[in-house]
Amino acid sequence: MIATKSYAAQTKTSPLAPFSFERRDLKPADVRIEILYCGVCHSDIHQARDEWGGSIFPMVPGHEIVGRVSAVGSAVKKFKVGDLAGVGCMVDSCRTCVSCQASEEQYCDNSQTVWTYNGRDKDGAPTYGGYSDQIVVDEAFTLSISPKLDLAAVAPLLCAGITTYSPLHHWKVGKGSRIGVVGLGGLGHMALKFGHAFGAHVVQFSTSPNKVEDAKKLGADEVILTKDPKNFEKVARSLDFIIDTVAAPHDLTPYLGTLKRDGVLVQVGVPNKPLEVPVFPLAIKRASIAGSAIGGIKETQEMLDFCAEHNIVSDIEIIPMQKINEAYERVLKSDVKYRFVIDMASLAGA
Amino acid sequence: MIATKSYAAQTKTSPLAPFSFERRDLKPADVRIEILYCGVCHSDIHQARDEWGGSIFPMVPGHEIVGRVSAVGSAVKKFKVGDLAGVGCMVDSCRTCVSCQASEEQYCDNSQTVWTYNGRDKDGAPTYGGYSDQIVVDEAFTLSISPKLDLAAVAPLLCAGITTYSPLHHWKVGKGSRIGVVGLGGLGHMALKFGHAFGAHVVQFSTSPNKVEDAKKLGADEVILTKDPKNFEKVARSLDFIIDTVAAPHDLTPYLGTLKRDGVLVQVGVPNKPLEVPVFPLAIKRASIAGSAIGGIKETQEMLDFCAEHNIVSDIEIIPMQKINEAYERVLKSDVKYRFVIDMASLAGA
Repeated sequence: MIATKSYAAQTKTSPLAPFSFERRDLKPADVRIEILYCGVCHSDIHQARDEWGGSIFPMVPGHEIVGRVSAVGSAVKKFKVGDLAGVGCMVDSCRTCVSCQASEEQYCDNSQTVWTYNGRDKDGAPTYGGYSDQIVVDEAFTLSISPKLDLAAVAPLLCAGITTYSPLHHWKVGKGSRIGVVGLGGLGHMALKFGHAFGAHVVQFSTSPNKVEDAKKLGADEVILTKDPKNFEKVARSLDFIIDTVAAPHDLTPYLGTLKRDGVLVQVGVPNKPLEVPVFPLAIKRASIAGSAIGGIKETQEMLDFCAEHNIVSDIEIIPMQKINEAYERVLKSDVKYRFVIDMASLAGA
Repeated sequence: MIATKSYAAQTKTSPLAPFSFERRDLKPADVRIEILYCGVCHSDIHQARDEWGGSIFPMVPGHEIVGRVSAVGSAVKKFKVGDLAGVGCMVDSCRTCVSCQASEEQYCDNSQTVWTYNGRDKDGAPTYGGYSDQIVVDEAFTLSISPKLDLAAVAPLLCAGITTYSPLHHWKVGKGSRIGVVGLGGLGHMALKFGHAFGAHVVQFSTSPNKVEDAKKLGADEVILTKDPKNFEKVARSLDFIIDTVAAPHDLTPYLGTLKRDGVLVQVGVPNKPLEVPVFPLAIKRASIAGSAIGGIKETQEMLDFCAEHNIVSDIEIIPMQKINEAYERVLKSDVKYRFVIDMASLAGA
């Protein structure tokens, strides 16, 4: 067993604090990764505070993991010691169902997706995430990372990146598409970058006048300030696709008005209350509201390769592990442009 | 002008009663139809009682119209006097936008679809529907009806039929598909017939144990009684597509549980309150909730031709015009198998 340093929440009300545990010894297909950076996702907070129910404590959050391979099992083929590697939201699945065979492991038909933390391995052991100095993962769920990009800024691609890339890709956004991005935070700024890189005309929806310039720098062709309902008229019936990254309950009606016939609104922010969906605005244009969860391993690798080719990373603010509780409070106030990333070197001194 | 007998609602609280008005003289592209039968749609009641707002009175409801061509304008090409003809929910549109050019006139991008009743013609005159002895309609919005089928039972195809045929067709339901139909009423029984005719495995969801036998006769491969939540487990994660015909507010969560990855639930019943849609059950399988409104003229003709070829009509109960108010009360109690159709010969004696 491999002694591992981390930060963990001991209960749903306790702040994160230093915690030691052991990673499993390498199985033949496992790689061990020395974690260099880990992004801070809003869902880390939801789960550490048990806001979705069923949290497993102690909990070591973190599923935006990048680092360097420090050991490999006897059967590993894709990685060697010294390679850069990443781990996202999942570390295993049934691998045999139709969805897993299609490399859509996040939609495993047998509900056996093993989440990177706050989950349980197939043998029942709790999984611990990336707020730690190393991780052991089957190479089938390990991603290759290009050395071309700023490694710290790559970390958020493993969740915020794939969560936005996958629906844009699945719904075939590209040249000639007109799309909307709702919310300009960790997810929203990645949706904006990908939409722009795919060649779409991107309309950013935001509540904040002070985000207009930023949105334009990040690739928005238009910015609609949503507090004045009249502003929606400028883009009425003009969009093929909307990616909505806002997790707080909000009224979808004005956004549905901006869709064309057969338009799709994908809700990637997951509010903990049901959305109120009026049927009439859907019926009059055969519009859809869809959900989407991260992306499969194959697609995640494609996304990382696309990012390396197009020089796309997340906009980040680096923090030491010791500042994580403060960072959580700032995430809750949307006071970050646009993703916190923990420099795991800070853990060595803890 | 052409003197026309009808039944109309004079206000949102008055029962329907005899009403005389004039149809326009024939323009070159118009056909005049002697109405033989008109179906009774739940939306007739919603609009006659102004439950959706904005109703225009006096109102002559009815948009499931079949009859015989009694006169044609000088430029009419598709119809001659004596032909059987039908009119559905719309009688005109802008005809120039992308949607109209694609014969999706019900989704007219310029919002200029002219509804068969409770609408306004391009010149601003109110439109009057099929609870009347004749109607004048542009041939472009007139359907050909095969003499092969029982004419009275064809009438509901013009709304209930196309409203269910169109989404099944659009979402490519066919051999190998597994679909669900929620609700067994005017719309539901048509969805069931079409799903079966398209070669799909059809699961009928119903609250009523006494509808099980009927559903099987109409083509259901399985019937799930929805009052016991456990029954949903029998079809968990097994359906590609659900057509939900229930207009009353209801919880979609159990139905979403029956969808496969990328499954679609189309809501064709239009509740007057927003549906509460939980995002998590959508996200975990990339499911969608969509709306759909009737179908275009081209598709409606295809549907009628398909019905003639496959001997599909609605199950109906024929009433005289004079029984319409009583019929409305029975529709509200779901006390009809499965659609009332008015025999317009009764109007001659009124």
